[in-house]
Amino acid sequence: MIRIGVIGCGNLGRGVERVISLNEDMELVGIFTRRNPAEVSTLYSHVYSMDRLMDFKDKIDVCILCGGSARDLPEQTPLITEHFNTVDSFDNHAKIPEHFQRVDEVAKASGKVSVISVGWDPGLFSINRLMGEAILPQGRTHTFWGKGVSQGHSDAIRRVDGVKLGVQYTIPKEEVIDRILAGEDVDLSTADKHIRLCYVVAEEGADEESIREAIVTMPNYFADYETRVEFITEEDFKKDHTGMPHGGRVIRLGETSPGTKQAYEFRLSLDSNPDFTASVSLAYARACYRLAKEGRTGAFTVLDIAPKYLSPKSDLDLQRDLL
Amino acid sequence: MIRIGVIGCGNLGRGVERVISLNEDMELVGIFTRRNPAEVSTLYSHVYSMDRLMDFKDKIDVCILCGGSARDLPEQTPLITEHFNTVDSFDNHAKIPEHFQRVDEVAKASGKVSVISVGWDPGLFSINRLMGEAILPQGRTHTFWGKGVSQGHSDAIRRVDGVKLGVQYTIPKEEVIDRILAGEDVDLSTADKHIRLCYVVAEEGADEESIREAIVTMPNYFADYETRVEFITEEDFKKDHTGMPHGGRVIRLGETSPGTKQAYEFRLSLDSNPDFTASVSLAYARACYRLAKEGRTGAFTVLDIAPKYLSPKSDLDLQRDLL
Repeated sequence: MIRIGVIGCGNLGRGVERVISLNEDMELVGIFTRRNPAEVSTLYSHVYSMDRLMDFKDKIDVCILCGGSARDLPEQTPLITEHFNTVDSFDNHAKIPEHFQRVDEVAKASGKVSVISVGWDPGLFSINRLMGEAILPQGRTHTFWGKGVSQGHSDAIRRVDGVKLGVQYTIPKEEVIDRILAGEDVDLSTADKHIRLCYVVAEEGADEESIREAIVTMPNYFADYETRVEFITEEDFKKDHTGMPHGGRVIRLGETSPGTKQAYEFRLSLDSNPDFTASVSLAYARACYRLAKEGRTGAFTVLDIAPKYLSPKSDLDLQRDLL
Repeated sequence: MIRIGVIGCGNLGRGVERVISLNEDMELVGIFTRRNPAEVSTLYSHVYSMDRLMDFKDKIDVCILCGGSARDLPEQTPLITEHFNTVDSFDNHAKIPEHFQRVDEVAKASGKVSVISVGWDPGLFSINRLMGEAILPQGRTHTFWGKGVSQGHSDAIRRVDGVKLGVQYTIPKEEVIDRILAGEDVDLSTADKHIRLCYVVAEEGADEESIREAIVTMPNYFADYETRVEFITEEDFKKDHTGMPHGGRVIRLGETSPGTKQAYEFRLSLDSNPDFTASVSLAYARACYRLAKEGRTGAFTVLDIAPKYLSPKSDLDLQRDLL
């Protein structure tokens, strides 16, 4: 059994707890938190204070770090990789090389393996951006996100005066996707390729027009986008908008000779973003464990890991059943 | 520059010749044939007799073997791997483990790298079958082929009495795909998931009903399938049915908890099957070359190779631009 420790009990940590039992070769040792463990409720797992993590040095094979990329992971991943093999989901694209470098030095010094930036973007989408481009060197790669809930944009809505509850869905423009798949060389910005749809429950007596105006003109978040705001009742909000669906597509539209179009597409449609990201993290925790068993050390990204490491099956079974 | 040799000048070999110039780090040294080189016409390449291959021992980095899986590759791949790094597209699924074993022994003894069973199925589809299953252990994987031309089935049609020209398209049943993507756990055979559509030009005076009957009742090829036969003129055949489009989808429909559906999908829509397969072979020829440079030896499949090896970009560029 691969013994997994979960660091942090937000959406991703709770996702790992929900899905780990689907993997017959894994067990969850415990969830570690900086909060008071007595105040953290879980499905079935032991919750420990982060201070106790070192007691588990020989009882955990891989730690999955479920903190945030802004403040937690830049410190946590190097620190914990001094003592454990780690998987994180660092998703601040611009700072990945710097994060990789820092974690790689620690991991090489401590003899551990750390797989960073695991999930679906960065993660599975990155693999497909790379493969699409490598196989079809002449072409254009498009990434679409959604339909799905953006946490950052939902938070931004909820900070607007007069908003009681709010959620934002990022929705790809289907007509743009259709043009790409029909072979057109479309060169559009992310803002031109997506719609932002907001469902808002207004406080009693709040002015809906002012709320709408505050949202659609908000710089960085909404101003550049086609943004729609719909006001709904609290009852409808709780019925229809508390899930965390997401998904998206990577499309590489290449030409192998003039007029010969070759379309490569990867697509996810997820009822639960945290549970799927947790599932990806566990598959890469398996890879992390196996690389460590082989004596490898250092930082890895999903681009550095052969597919077979994700599967519990033997090389021969993979050749026979899946190739 | 990675110096490529092409062995065989059928559809795949000619595809390599057409697409190699899209790869700035590669050059085609020559095409090697068992036929009389003087009788083989190419776009621009030198054609050599197979007997001369050994003269190029130090002039070719990777040989791409473009022969057939039934008769050519089981012999050719081990033989040529004694002297060259090789990539083949061995696609007899049932015999892959045996082929791998034989090539692996030769490659380890000769200090070469051989990447076998490269293409899109086996190949890219295999990677996605593996990843879908590893990430979503509870679920079902569906492979659909088409819409595209099946060479084997087209050949079978052309052997029927009274058939002058014929082509067979494998077409996935869209209604089955829709049910799967809507979350239904569909358990159907390949025959139940595809239609076989045949376009036939009959010889003058031939009886169309007899031809239709001979096709739709043909065991192994058509009898188990929903098969449609349409008779067309030679003119229409030459206008509309001489290309080699193909494609398909791998869909993993998983559940991470009861009712929480997660759909993972990989899809190809190809105007030219040979040119795309050639493009995949060249990306894996790059991987083959780089693995050999690292001192690795033996046989590999696409499941054994990390994505980064396919790209000419540095690790740092990949982290910055694609992750």
